[in-house]
Amino acid sequence: MSEKAVRGFVCELLAVFYQKGWVAGTGGGICASLGRGLFLMAPTGVHKERVAPSDLFVVDSMNGKVVSPSKNRALRLSECGTIFCELIRKRKAGSVMHSHALSAVLAADRARPLDQLEIRGFEMLKGLRGESNDAVHMVPVINNRPKEAELLGEITRVVDTPKFQRAHCILVRDHGAYIWGEDIWETKRHAEVYHFLFEAVLARAQASRMRKI
Amino acid sequence: MSEKAVRGFVCELLAVFYQKGWVAGTGGGICASLGRGLFLMAPTGVHKERVAPSDLFVVDSMNGKVVSPSKNRALRLSECGTIFCELIRKRKAGSVMHSHALSAVLAADRARPLDQLEIRGFEMLKGLRGESNDAVHMVPVINNRPKEAELLGEITRVVDTPKFQRAHCILVRDHGAYIWGEDIWETKRHAEVYHFLFEAVLARAQASRMRKI
Amino acid sequence: MSEKAVRGFVCELLAVFYQKGWVAGTGGGICASLGRGLFLMAPTGVHKERVAPSDLFVVDSMNGKVVSPSKNRALRLSECGTIFCELIRKRKAGSVMHSHALSAVLAADRARPLDQLEIRGFEMLKGLRGESNDAVHMVPVINNRPKEAELLGEITRVVDTPKFQRAHCILVRDHGAYIWGEDIWETKRHAEVYHFLFEAVLARAQASRMRKI
Amino acid sequence: MSEKAVRGFVCELLAVFYQKGWVAGTGGGICASLGRGLFLMAPTGVHKERVAPSDLFVVDSMNGKVVSPSKNRALRLSECGTIFCELIRKRKAGSVMHSHALSAVLAADRARPLDQLEIRGFEMLKGLRGESNDAVHMVPVINNRPKEAELLGEITRVVDTPKFQRAHCILVRDHGAYIWGEDIWETKRHAEVYHFLFEAVLARAQASRMRKI
Repeated sequence: MSEKAVRGFVCELLAVFYQKGWVAGTGGGICASLGRGLFLMAPTGVHKERVAPSDLFVVDSMNGKVVSPSKNRALRLSECGTIFCELIRKRKAGSVMHSHALSAVLAADRARPLDQLEIRGFEMLKGLRGESNDAVHMVPVINNRPKEAELLGEITRVVDTPKFQRAHCILVRDHGAYIWGEDIWETKRHAEVYHFLFEAVLARAQASRMRKI
Repeated sequence: MSEKAVRGFVCELLAVFYQKGWVAGTGGGICASLGRGLFLMAPTGVHKERVAPSDLFVVDSMNGKVVSPSKNRALRLSECGTIFCELIRKRKAGSVMHSHALSAVLAADRARPLDQLEIRGFEMLKGLRGESNDAVHMVPVINNRPKEAELLGEITRVVDTPKFQRAHCILVRDHGAYIWGEDIWETKRHAEVYHFLFEAVLARAQASRMRKI
Repeated sequence: MSEKAVRGFVCELLAVFYQKGWVAGTGGGICASLGRGLFLMAPTGVHKERVAPSDLFVVDSMNGKVVSPSKNRALRLSECGTIFCELIRKRKAGSVMHSHALSAVLAADRARPLDQLEIRGFEMLKGLRGESNDAVHMVPVINNRPKEAELLGEITRVVDTPKFQRAHCILVRDHGAYIWGEDIWETKRHAEVYHFLFEAVLARAQASRMRKI
Repeated sequence: MSEKAVRGFVCELLAVFYQKGWVAGTGGGICASLGRGLFLMAPTGVHKERVAPSDLFVVDSMNGKVVSPSKNRALRLSECGTIFCELIRKRKAGSVMHSHALSAVLAADRARPLDQLEIRGFEMLKGLRGESNDAVHMVPVINNRPKEAELLGEITRVVDTPKFQRAHCILVRDHGAYIWGEDIWETKRHAEVYHFLFEAVLARAQASRMRKI
């Protein structure tokens, strides 16, 4: 894909994510590789479904520095930048999305008191690279912090934890999720699969409770 | 933004709100500043997603008088006008939206027997101007009245109440919510954040009850 | 509105209703007045969101006879025709819609063992012609029958029942609802208000039960 | 319909199904007859709402062989191919869709410990060819397997089981559903009806449990 095509697709996906309720209220974000370690990243504090291709920043994922700013000089880089760069380097992600979906918040609630959400018993698990439908898939859950950048320490810890090596997602309590893939298409697929799984885990747990009444 | 652009954006947002179920059945409304104390306001009793830019009224927020009527002379000004003007003057709102969302009604139910909804434990709180994600955010809840204009007394009371100074929203029992911001963009963001929070508070409370079964 | 405009709007509303889940699986329908007792009616057994203006039938509401058939001779008139004509004559409806919404089915379930659904405590009641927000609004509920035309007897009975004179809706158990207005715009508004109220009644009842756990 | 029209409609339906949440995360699929035993089939592992008419394969349903591959040589045929061909041959299906809807998974959960879901008491049953609204409609439920092709044995068994002769659907636990019709229009209608029924059965069961609290 050309840089122009990636810019367009990043903005299109933000609009798709908005329709699904994942990036409401200016929350959430996305980044996607342009090759050679450079990534397009969305600005912060803007209505994500209305981001234009020229609004995006180009960031060097090796050092997190802005290589090419947004054409709109009033915009600032997404606060997810540091975390995105960590996931790019540690997990070889070619794209990362950050969701503020309610289903992600409720799935993290449900994991309590554990710091992991175990997902099993869904064909949809096959939609995650390297996973089978009879796997027990472990998603790390970390606590929220006042500032997004303060999540970095915990994110570094969980991406290095052996039992989470098959996860392409980190849940942040009260907040949402970071979801990644080897390219923007896989990130889209993983985002759709994980949000399905969050809703599925919640619905199945509720149905199970109801049967006890 | 030019007056033409604001007129277009007001109508676009009404269509967005309709898609979300916030202004169904001709309910709800919006106003937005044109500068110098003048505000565009939607007509009453019309299908809000179909309001045209020329259908809007221009109202002087200082005295609530219509400065320039709708081009469609069959239309009457939204009954929210008086309340919108109060919020513009008392809270320096540059835009106010009125929601008839079911989630707002249910969130007000949930506040009973208190006259306030306490919201805490959500990153989304950061989407409200001046609020942090570790705040306890207090939203006033007032009783509904037979006529919209009769809500004014209670609205004046709660906007003057110290503990509600960080709120950009008033919930009206059985009815919906008034949500404002310093401009139309902030009102859109606040509307998305508050509706997310209403749904989140309800979903978390339900999950908590289910765990007791 | 010209006949051409009404034909277009009827088809547009069917697409809107489909988006809301009210006419899925070829179910549901609509009719709208052309004046002089003549009504446009949708065909039966077709995907309602794909009905074209020329697919519609013109029916004389006085005797239920087709005055002008669909241009597509393979189509047959909606089975709701007889019921639509009854509501047009008895309630002076200028338009009637027939919904297969799940919320209508569940609201009728909830009325059991009574043959009426009482709705109170919602501002949205004001969206029904002649109703106030402090009213107790009574919607008749009738039993389903193997064939749509067999519902006519019960429909005639409830439209003549004094306590249902303020209703613009009849719920049919296991099936859906008939909703009408004095013209197609009011039918759209009433349809949105009633479906909101069905969902609201169900959600409030569920929240109330949960508080007892 | 010309081959070009069928190709376009198959892609349009995939986009409609995606909007409904039935084919998220590249899951699900569809096939439709071109006549003479030849069927258009979607590729595997692609975002279904973005499939282009030239991406489709033409398969001979008699032997499952690809007669004409996708123009995009990087694409592989849907793994549903074998199952689709079985349903085409055994049930004279002119089109089959494969859903990954959460409601299908939850409906299969609900059938436990039985291997069938009994659906009764809904007008929507009439939307299934040959069914009446007072029928007890029996949908077979089979267990999921690690690979899609391994479902074939169970699928063959249930399509030959007398009590399931009126079903146009097979539920697969933890996975979703296969739904078919005599042509692509009927498959669309059946898909909408069955997904409505899955949601209806779940909602009614939940309401029934709540009444016991």
